Amino acid sequence: MKEQITTDPGKTRSAIAWAAMVILSASAPAQEAIWGGPELVSPQIHEDRTVTFLLDAPGAGEVLISGEWMPPEGFVPGSAGMQKNEKGTWTHTTGVLEPELYGYFFTVDGLRVSDPLNPFQFRDIATLSNIFIIPGPPADLYRVQDVPHGTVSKRWYDSPGLGMERRLTIYTPPGYETSGESYPVLYLLHGAGGDEEAWPTKGRVPQIMDNLIASGEAVPMIVVMPNGNVIQDAAPGEGSDGFYKPRFMVPQTMDGTFEETFTDIMQFVENSYRVIPDKGDRAVAGLSMGGFHALHISRYYPETFDYIGLFSAALVPGFNSDSPVYRDVDVTLKRQMDNGYRLYWIGIGKEDFLYKNNMQYMEKLDSMGMPYESVESEGGHIWKNWRSYLTQFVPQLFK
Amino acid sequence: MKEQITTDPGKTRSAIAWAAMVILSASAPAQEAIWGGPELVSPQIHEDRTVTFLLDAPGAGEVLISGEWMPPEGFVPGSAGMQKNEKGTWTHTTGVLEPELYGYFFTVDGLRVSDPLNPFQFRDIATLSNIFIIPGPPADLYRVQDVPHGTVSKRWYDSPGLGMERRLTIYTPPGYETSGESYPVLYLLHGAGGDEEAWPTKGRVPQIMDNLIASGEAVPMIVVMPNGNVIQDAAPGEGSDGFYKPRFMVPQTMDGTFEETFTDIMQFVENSYRVIPDKGDRAVAGLSMGGFHALHISRYYPETFDYIGLFSAALVPGFNSDSPVYRDVDVTLKRQMDNGYRLYWIGIGKEDFLYKNNMQYMEKLDSMGMPYESVESEGGHIWKNWRSYLTQFVPQLFK
Repeated sequence: MKEQITTDPGKTRSAIAWAAMVILSASAPAQEAIWGGPELVSPQIHEDRTVTFLLDAPGAGEVLISGEWMPPEGFVPGSAGMQKNEKGTWTHTTGVLEPELYGYFFTVDGLRVSDPLNPFQFRDIATLSNIFIIPGPPADLYRVQDVPHGTVSKRWYDSPGLGMERRLTIYTPPGYETSGESYPVLYLLHGAGGDEEAWPTKGRVPQIMDNLIASGEAVPMIVVMPNGNVIQDAAPGEGSDGFYKPRFMVPQTMDGTFEETFTDIMQFVENSYRVIPDKGDRAVAGLSMGGFHALHISRYYPETFDYIGLFSAALVPGFNSDSPVYRDVDVTLKRQMDNGYRLYWIGIGKEDFLYKNNMQYMEKLDSMGMPYESVESEGGHIWKNWRSYLTQFVPQLFK
Repeated sequence: MKEQITTDPGKTRSAIAWAAMVILSASAPAQEAIWGGPELVSPQIHEDRTVTFLLDAPGAGEVLISGEWMPPEGFVPGSAGMQKNEKGTWTHTTGVLEPELYGYFFTVDGLRVSDPLNPFQFRDIATLSNIFIIPGPPADLYRVQDVPHGTVSKRWYDSPGLGMERRLTIYTPPGYETSGESYPVLYLLHGAGGDEEAWPTKGRVPQIMDNLIASGEAVPMIVVMPNGNVIQDAAPGEGSDGFYKPRFMVPQTMDGTFEETFTDIMQFVENSYRVIPDKGDRAVAGLSMGGFHALHISRYYPETFDYIGLFSAALVPGFNSDSPVYRDVDVTLKRQMDNGYRLYWIGIGKEDFLYKNNMQYMEKLDSMGMPYESVESEGGHIWKNWRSYLTQFVPQLFK
């Protein structure tokens, strides 16, 4: 053993000894994975912003690729056939893609599969999609850049209103730990089927915030991403329910309970972090169901939020007519208007199934004389829009 | 629009309105995913600790399941054929499994695929495996239990030695934020091909620590899980290199640089957290390459660590004979022994390809009269052993 842990005369001999040990104990496929050789890479992002995908499946009869750059079919991305080459590898090369973060998956003889060559995936409810980024604006905001980075924590807080400890994600800006300063807070809410993992992963919140703060476009702020499903203590797989198949609609969705117990989250944050606890330094925003939550939270708690963001908001009736949260909506909206706020921001895609609802809501605000800003984007109920709305909303906060 | 956001007379009508909107805009597969119907579940963990897997692939000619409960073939889990039923769904039911966290995947006509019904996966280098847990001891330590939970943060620190900001994972115990107390620190190091995501995911560190602290078996402590690949600022996908295919061996592996710059990590932790900065309150442990790092860090920095853990340690020569870290090993080991420590713990599996090296190392320690404790377990170079070693090591710390 002495020879093995004392200095070896050459780097090469040591490396070979280690390599030999690993190879001797590894099977052929593992050797290949570990030691390289002719290795496929997918996706291959080319300089001209086209992308080539490879799938080594000689036995397959038909392989499709579905990707977010193709026109969607309902909630599912459009698809294209892949071509089989003489080695049994299926390939597809896209046209020129706009800079963006894209999700995709393959369908092999009817079976949905991930790209086995790409370990990067995001979960959306119960399904996983591979991801890649085409660089360039605005997608550079979604990439990790060489800028100061905030801290992302998974922390549990006590919710007396729900009778449980619950998990949330919290982003504190670069320098938070040492500055001694207090910060404004953005509460950022997910959609139905999401949880406290949604915004920090597919929403790219840590990257967006780091980059907007570094460029000076956004002021340093804390971003709180709670779990809006009141029956869960944490995201699927992260809580006391263990590993189970997540579902789109869980019990007690949009029944008023999340809004009623939202003070538990705010009190936890304001007691646990250096925040500026006033209306001018609080924002609440959310996507889809989270936009619905943001609407109701901002009017149900008067004089609490100066900034409100509705991203493709699910502007439908609450599911529980007995909840005090959904009573007197017009009266409380009027009160919210009279109390004043700095920004009421609405983003909606022209192809969103909630487009009409959002238009009707804006007409209602118009008729009340309630001020708001709105952005109408291309596309539908998709993460591309929510990331974009966030990058448009955040620079307007706390200035 | 007034009707849509003011109170609706019944829950049912509201829910139906929302459902209708979603369904109208969703394609058939999305509807099925969202609205249930006859839905397959995989894996199905039965009361008798057998497990059934399902894969709906009518077009496939052969489907295998590979799982960590089957004897491995080198580094790859053993496999079994699945049976096709009349509906084209492939099934397999295991025998009775011991309580444990297991990884698995399918192979469909030669193509490795994940279980599309199970969104929970861990990444190991560049491949993903699905996971599930059979409850019972010791696996209950790997589950989220109804106990106080620590905080898990991804934080960036400055490494002057490497000239970059780098990302690490840090676990602070329940109550850290409010107790005002100072805590001991365990530095926990990953293996080759791993990064700061390895121990907190497949290693189940947050769950193990929460559970051991709650039962009183472990004292509250901070666990620091840095990235041991000095060319990376962060795990693949989390750093400035973006999304790329991770590899087993990266440049500058085990060349002394990680050990030399380890003081950057310690200084960051001791300046940034309430820790007890003395030898009696510091531990360093690691798996495989991390065990190699723990060995060298603990002898290279004299009078720094009272607790050392080598888990299936890669006891091979360093790859850079010029590094001061790998010089005078025998002299510095003797000095480490003379300075004294509380625990030098070695765990190794009987079937590990590093078994012989570990035996030789223990003979060397015996010949020096250097005290240690050792555990010889079944199995090889596997996460089952590393989780188990951690649960055996941690209760012995800081008492």
